This record gives sequence, structure tokens and C-alpha cells, in this order.
Amino acid sequence: MCRWLAYAGEPLTPGTLILETQHSLVAQSLHSPMGKETVNGDGFGIGWYPAGGVPGAAPAFFRSVEPAWHDENLRELAHAIHSPLFFAHVRAAAGPPIQQTNCHPFRHENWLFMHNGALREFGLMKRDIMLGIDPALFPAVHGTTDSEAMFYLALTLGLRTDPVGAMAEAIREVERIGRALSIPNPVQGTFAVTDGSRIWAFRYSTEHRSRTLFYSEEMDTLRATYPDLDRLRVFGANARVIVSEPLTDLPGAFIEVPESTVAVLDASGYHQEPFLRAA
Amino acid sequence: MCRWLAYAGEPLTPGTLILETQHSLVAQSLHSPMGKETVNGDGFGIGWYPAGGVPGAAPAFFRSVEPAWHDENLRELAHAIHSPLFFAHVRAAAGPPIQQTNCHPFRHENWLFMHNGALREFGLMKRDIMLGIDPALFPAVHGTTDSEAMFYLALTLGLRTDPVGAMAEAIREVERIGRALSIPNPVQGTFAVTDGSRIWAFRYSTEHRSRTLFYSEEMDTLRATYPDLDRLRVFGANARVIVSEPLTDLPGAFIEVPESTVAVLDASGYHQEPFLRAA
Amino acid sequence: MCRWLAYAGEPLTPGTLILETQHSLVAQSLHSPMGKETVNGDGFGIGWYPAGGVPGAAPAFFRSVEPAWHDENLRELAHAIHSPLFFAHVRAAAGPPIQQTNCHPFRHENWLFMHNGALREFGLMKRDIMLGIDPALFPAVHGTTDSEAMFYLALTLGLRTDPVGAMAEAIREVERIGRALSIPNPVQGTFAVTDGSRIWAFRYSTEHRSRTLFYSEEMDTLRATYPDLDRLRVFGANARVIVSEPLTDLPGAFIEVPESTVAVLDASGYHQEPFLRAA
Amino acid sequence: MCRWLAYAGEPLTPGTLILETQHSLVAQSLHSPMGKETVNGDGFGIGWYPAGGVPGAAPAFFRSVEPAWHDENLRELAHAIHSPLFFAHVRAAAGPPIQQTNCHPFRHENWLFMHNGALREFGLMKRDIMLGIDPALFPAVHGTTDSEAMFYLALTLGLRTDPVGAMAEAIREVERIGRALSIPNPVQGTFAVTDGSRIWAFRYSTEHRSRTLFYSEEMDTLRATYPDLDRLRVFGANARVIVSEPLTDLPGAFIEVPESTVAVLDASGYHQEPFLRAA
Repeated sequence: MCRWLAYAGEPLTPGTLILETQHSLVAQSLHSPMGKETVNGDGFGIGWYPAGGVPGAAPAFFRSVEPAWHDENLRELAHAIHSPLFFAHVRAAAGPPIQQTNCHPFRHENWLFMHNGALREFGLMKRDIMLGIDPALFPAVHGTTDSEAMFYLALTLGLRTDPVGAMAEAIREVERIGRALSIPNPVQGTFAVTDGSRIWAFRYSTEHRSRTLFYSEEMDTLRATYPDLDRLRVFGANARVIVSEPLTDLPGAFIEVPESTVAVLDASGYHQEPFLRAA
Repeated sequence: MCRWLAYAGEPLTPGTLILETQHSLVAQSLHSPMGKETVNGDGFGIGWYPAGGVPGAAPAFFRSVEPAWHDENLRELAHAIHSPLFFAHVRAAAGPPIQQTNCHPFRHENWLFMHNGALREFGLMKRDIMLGIDPALFPAVHGTTDSEAMFYLALTLGLRTDPVGAMAEAIREVERIGRALSIPNPVQGTFAVTDGSRIWAFRYSTEHRSRTLFYSEEMDTLRATYPDLDRLRVFGANARVIVSEPLTDLPGAFIEVPESTVAVLDASGYHQEPFLRAA
Repeated sequence: MCRWLAYAGEPLTPGTLILETQHSLVAQSLHSPMGKETVNGDGFGIGWYPAGGVPGAAPAFFRSVEPAWHDENLRELAHAIHSPLFFAHVRAAAGPPIQQTNCHPFRHENWLFMHNGALREFGLMKRDIMLGIDPALFPAVHGTTDSEAMFYLALTLGLRTDPVGAMAEAIREVERIGRALSIPNPVQGTFAVTDGSRIWAFRYSTEHRSRTLFYSEEMDTLRATYPDLDRLRVFGANARVIVSEPLTDLPGAFIEVPESTVAVLDASGYHQEPFLRAA
Repeated sequence: MCRWLAYAGEPLTPGTLILETQHSLVAQSLHSPMGKETVNGDGFGIGWYPAGGVPGAAPAFFRSVEPAWHDENLRELAHAIHSPLFFAHVRAAAGPPIQQTNCHPFRHENWLFMHNGALREFGLMKRDIMLGIDPALFPAVHGTTDSEAMFYLALTLGLRTDPVGAMAEAIREVERIGRALSIPNPVQGTFAVTDGSRIWAFRYSTEHRSRTLFYSEEMDTLRATYPDLDRLRVFGANARVIVSEPLTDLPGAFIEVPESTVAVLDASGYHQEPFLRAA
């Protein structure tokens, strides 16, 4: 269910990563080697902070229900924009209908959110989860997915001031709701969150067997390893991505994020910490 | 905000009414003389009980976000099916997004529901209305409109056993919620409901200035008045429609449904009664 | 590039075959075991002659650019209509854009046409092929595919009076055009044609390695072999299908159509003949 | 049939003109006071040369079959990009199907083209017009409109070296074809062409009663006339637009382009010349 990519670094045209890599995100929409579903053709989205944009401003996004592989507008746009931080997502719908409001990423003010995985038996849990959302935020929920509900639950629980703490609380809340309804292993997924300057990516599932997640090696290291590799030249020294599965087979280029971990990408680079390891 | 048509009578191809009349519903999608909005181009839907179908079976529907006037599939379908009872709707979106799950009619089991009008400040009222919906029905709400929420509230309040009573209660409940939030005149609209054998159409608004609603004259009477009118020949003796605005300028063909009235179409023909007249 | 199915027999809801079989056409849209492409998600179409329809009348069709697997309207329609003869198609676009006018089947008067495969280097051959089309038919070409061009070329060459001869001539004409442009093996495919009472299906390619094609065994034979198989009961004694690949793993149920063969389905049942075997 | 806008000047977000003016192009899609059709809801497009782009590079475009008024992606994009020269178009389809390849503007290499109006009886003239297109350009025609055919005919006749001469020749050629087929007044329209640094806009019809066309007054003049008008401040000194109808009621802001005229917008500003005045 879904594949995603989060980039931070020097301003880049998203097409460089989502179209022109060996196992690009758009290629993964038609054939994802590591995905739970092979085909991720139920819509896509891209959210980006424009190069030269005002800090704290809301990002732009482009979302569509078309399969990513046959969308001409995505190809145009992915080459026309430049961005120092963007999210991209291809969807394999697990249940909620295929409509633009259900495409990732989701946006609230200057925040973006996307998800690969599912809240199990979401139909049963949905009412309780929706009740947990701040009534002032309730009208801002535009779609009907588990992922967006999780985003607004986390916003309710303080995402804007403590992203890691709020995501932990939101997950615990869904697990409580699931337990009360006798739903086994209610939370599954990798989640990505950003405020436009920092990216938090969570790999977590109640059953501790989460969807795959990888981050890219430092550019300096990669260039030292592959001094003749022309296609690395388009990337700046700080270019990093966190992604559902490797974009290339290049040995050493992508490293797995461990189970129950939060990965952070910011001005100081990439680092990771345990997340909800002790239940 | 929207135009709709409900037909009951001898099996008919919907195209006869929604495409081939002078002011057909599809013509109204591009230009509605009496509508609050001139253009109703934000999607459409048609729900029908097939001729020869099993009594009590769920109807089929076809809904799309395209403007009705440029949808080739609608033209095909409207001429390919036969139905003794169908609903058709063209939408002018008042806020909730343009997506298939927000297109009317809405369906639950063997019931169909459609609406022209709006619940005012629905964003503010939505959480309270959703809380009023039976938790067992909550997962069946697929879209995000005020209209569908009203349908499920009425289902919760007994629509399947007492349609008129349940619609009255649902409207009163929304008016209570609106009053508590200081929203003036929260309910506006005409509503159509059917179980496949009978149609109930409600013209009501809190302010008692509701969207237009008309019903068609008996065929025998029309044929006596216009004995030479060829285009009446396609209709059976029991053909009747309730519709947002007249489908033709033919004098006497369409009669206005009074304010605060429920109109009923069943085997015995058309009749109407006061509805929520004494606030 | 594409998968298709043609049915003739007692009136049937298409859903029985395109949705409810083990390897249904809609399942093949997401995963086709024998197809040149695994995913056939670039639109779909269904064309049908309604049960009880007027002989010689044009069929209805429903075509969409959505992947077949996520189209709610297709599910509705496939269960709501009854037809003694229908075509269904899922597309994997080889080049021409994904738009409704490029979805199969194509229709002209009472005829339907669909294709799996491709005219190689169609961009180069297109002008010459289009010039071969009767100027009176030229405005009826609504899309931009090789398949529709082939249909109108065959109509020009007498499809309505001699389908087998006209298809042979059209293929030879394209091969001539291809040869003149030094295009190797210009024609590849399986083609299905119907006038509403008879189906002709062609398996042919210049290189004599054509896309797969199968026909179903007689119902009487199947029922004798599998007397306890409940799911055969929905089919009438004359139900037959010609299809890109078997709809089920049931041994004996589907038989391959040989290379360079025309298969015919009519009131007398299924028969086949060599087609363009001697080059 | 259609409304369009062409901008040249200091880099601007297109939303400033197509969304935020009094009678913006998107407002005209729902209600065009001067258009032949009131509603222009059959798709839209925007083509732009990015700010800071390479001279002579192909522009980007975004086209969709949705009505412009309900497209969320258009709103996002129109505020996210900056461009010193862009085309925007809303369509009212005259016949050719509503599909992305039929949305304006059309692009070839670094050129953009758009049209408001029609070639009369295009179905009859189409084959002859297509035959007039250079066989090498023929495969580049992706859609099925009269407008795109005119673009490729003009490209064949030298648009890239002499835009005014080539447009004149292309129009004369269509008039010759129309005359041979006894079609009265075959050409109607306003046409816009650009190579990324200069815009040519043609107002011409065989009958000399062409669709409306306007250009905007110089910014210095406007600011002198309206020194207190805040909304003029977003525009640079060289900002100019050519547009189907005025974007505002501000007296003096928009001036009509005369019948049978070519208007040119380039680094030296706006100027106009007679075009095909003597038949």
C-alpha cells in the first residue's frame, strides 16, 4: 500500500528523483519490487516548498487520481519546479475511495504528511479516531483516509510543537482504540512529516514488522566511492532522501532504517533514534 | 446548488427525460433558469431500479465528477437502460470537494437520496451531525457532503420505517445543532428519498424560502389537453416526475410543490401533505 | 498491450465474466499472467448489444481512462446490464495518449472493433494509413490509435460485407506501407470484430508470433466434465467466449486459437479457419 | 468558444491574472460576458516559460479536461510558478472531444499556440488540412482539434521563421479548402502564438466579424491615471496582456484590438498592424 519519497537538500527538480532514477517512484507506481502491492496506481501526489520561498509558508501541492505512470502533467511539473524539500507519493488504495482528497501528501498550514501502510479495520476505528480530533481541526479533514485521520490526530496531540512526541501519542491512541475493539495490530506503516525545514520519518507497526524504509548515503561518501559516476553530479553536497525502497541498485547508496525508528533530516544531516521500542 | 429529477411510472429510458426534453436536466447543468446557480457542472449522478428487477434489491448507480453536458458515458447509459423508477442529479458544489463520493444520489441498501440546497455553515455543524449518526452506519458514509450526512442522520432516525417522520426529525436535529452554534437558517433544500417503490420529495427550509420544486401533471390530463402532441406518446399512463424546475414550457405540464410540503409518488399516483409547517 | 474478451450466447450480465471469474478481465488489468505487459491500467471499455434490442441497432458502450480495477461505475454497469453479445477490453497504452477516444472497443454504426497488439512504428505509418481511409469515413475517426485506424481502413476495404476479406486486405495494406518504410514486422495482434450477431476474431502477426488467444469449450461438454461445478450454472447452453487468456485454470475450459487463424462465433457455435497463412 | 490570455512582462505568478482579477480567466470559465458561449467549462490549459529559464527552451504546460473553476491543481500551480511569458486558455468545445490532447495551448519545440473560435465544418475540411501538414510533422499532432491542425499547418508553412506570413498563408489555405467544399466563412477566431520571447496575436475571420480581443494599457499610464490603486502594484513596468475580454471594468485599462489585425508584444512593448485586410 503505497510508496513514498522525501527529499531535502539543495534545490532540485523533483523529476531527477521521481522520474529519472533506476527504480524511480513513478517506476515503482507500475512495479514496486519491495512493496506489499506491486502496483501503486491509485493516484499520486507531490508537495513542495518552492526554492526561494518564504520560511514558514505553506507548501504547494499537486495531487491526482490518475496512475502516476500515465500522467503528463506530473512529468511537466516534476521538471518545471525547483525545491529544497519535497514529498512525493504513489498510492495503492486499501479501501478508502480513489479521489484527490485521499491522495497523499496531506497539508495543514506549513506542514505535510504522508503514509505507507494502513490502520487495520479503519472502518471500525474511524468514528473513535475522528472523535479524538480537536473540533476546531475537524472541518479541515477533507478526505476519508486512515492516513489523514492520523495526521489530524497527531496535530491535535501537538505535532506542531513536538512531532516525535505527538506521533507517539497518536499511535498509542489508535492502538488503544484498536485494542478496545479487539483489532489485532492496528497500526502499520511508515509516516513522513515535515514543517518545511526538517523531515521526520517514522518506521513503526504494532506488530514490529513494518513496511520497508531507507535513507540515502551522504553525497560526499557516494562520490568518493563512485568518482566516475556522472549521474551523481546533479546532486548538491547536502542532498538526502528517505524513501520506501532504494531508487537504484548502486551498492551502498541506500541504507535501511531500522524497525521502530524515527529518522530525521535537517540542516545537520541525517540522524535516527529509537521510536516506541518498549511497548 | 444542484438540480434533480425523480421519475416513477412505466419503464422508461432516462434519456427521454434527462436529455431529450426542452429544459432537460443535462441542459440545466449548463444553464438552469430557476436555479440558485446558473451552472451545475460539478458532477452528476443517476440511480435506477432496473426494469424487471427484484423488489427490494439495491438500485444501480452511475456517478461522475464530469459536467453532465460533456459526458459521453452518460449519453450512452441514459439510452441503454430501462427503469420504472430513477433519480438523476446535476451538482453545483457549495464547498465539499468535487469527487465521485460526493455526487448524488447516495445509496444505502435499497434506498436512494438526493438533495438540492445546503446545510449552512456545514463545516461548523459537521462534527455534531456526524456524532448523531448511528456508529454502525458511520463507516458507510463514503463522502464528505452535508447531503450524505443528512441521509445517514435520517437513516439513524428511522428513515427505513417512517420516511416522513425521520426526515422531520433529522431536519429538527440539524436546526438544533445550528441554533446552538448561532447559525441562522441552517437547513435549505429540496430532498428526494426512495425505497424503490415510492418516492418522497421534501421542499423545506428553516427560513421558509426553499429551492423550487415541481411535479408533472397526470398523463391522461396532459394528453387530453394536447391531443396532437407527439412527444407525449413515449410516456405511459402512470409516468410522473418530481423535478427542481419544469422540463418544458408547455402550459399546465408542471405544477409547483408548495413551500413546506412533502410530495409522494406511488402506485396510487401523486399526492402531497404539509411538512413541518408549524415551527 | 491490452487484454480483451468477446462473449456470445444467452443474455448475461458482463460482470459474471469480467469481474467474477478467477482470472477475470478486471483482474488481468492489474495482473495479466500471459500479457506482454503485466499491468493493463490505461483505461478500459465495454460495448454491448442490449438483451431484447433491435437487430442491426448500434450497440451501447462505456469507456473510461481509469484503470478498470478502480472504477466503481464499471462494477455497477457490469451487473446492471444484460447482453447476448458484448466486448470488453483493458488497455496498456503503447504510445497514443490515454483518453476516452482511444479506449477500445471502437464503434461504427452497428459494428464494434477491438485490438490487442500494435502496428509497429505507427507514428511513421500513420499518415499513409489515414490516407487509405475513405474520405467519407475520415471524420468518423475520433481518436488517435493504430487500432482505430486499422478499423476504419478495414471498413473502407469492405468490412461490412466481407469481414474476413477486408481484414486480410487491411493487414496487407499496412504491411505494404510498413515495407515501404523499412519497418520490420509491422502488424501484431489479435483483433475482434462484430456486427451484433456474429463475432470474428483474428490472431495474426507479420512475424507469425502473435499475442495469445483462446476460446472456451462448449458448455455441454464442460458440464459433462464437471457435473458438480456450481459456477457453470449461470451460463446458458450457447455461452461462448473468445479471450486473450484463460479466465480460469479449469483444465479443458479454454483452448488456444492457433497462429494465423480467424475464429468465428455465431448461431451455429464456434469454428475456425486459417487466416493469411501463406504470405 | 473559448477565452484566452497571453502575458508578457516581469515574472509574475499566473494566478495574479487568471484567478485574482475582477473578470479573471477562471471566472470567465464559469461566466464569460463577451464570449460566444457563456460557459467555458470543457477543460483548460496553461503554458509557461519559467522565470530564469534557458532562452529557446521548450515551455512547460499543464492541461486538464476539468472545468477551470473546480480544479484545485490549477489554483496551486497558478500561485507556485513565476513566469515572464505565459499563455492560459479555457475551452468551450465546439465538437472535437474533451480530452487533454485537445486542450490549449498546443506546444511544439519552444512554441506555444492557442485559439478562440473555430474552423467551420472542420469534419469536412479535416482530411485536406491534415494532408497539407508536412509528413515529418504529422506524427506530432496529438489531438483532434481544428486549432492544433491550424498550428501544424502554420508550422509547415514557416511559422518558425515568419509567424505573420505563415499564419496568413495557413488561413488562406483553409479558406481555399473551405471554398472548394462550399463552406461559407471557414475561418473564425483569435489566435495567439509565441516563441518564448515575443507574442503574436491575430484577430481575424473570413467574414470580418471576429471574436473579441483586447490588450492592456501601459502600466505607467495606468498608474498615472489611478495613483491610489493598490492592486496595480504587483505588476512590473513592462507587464502587458492580450486577452479575449477585459479582466476588469477599470476605464482605460483594456483597449480593443481592431478587426483583421495582428498584435505584437515584445521587448519594445505593444504594437499592431493590419492583417489580411484586403481579401
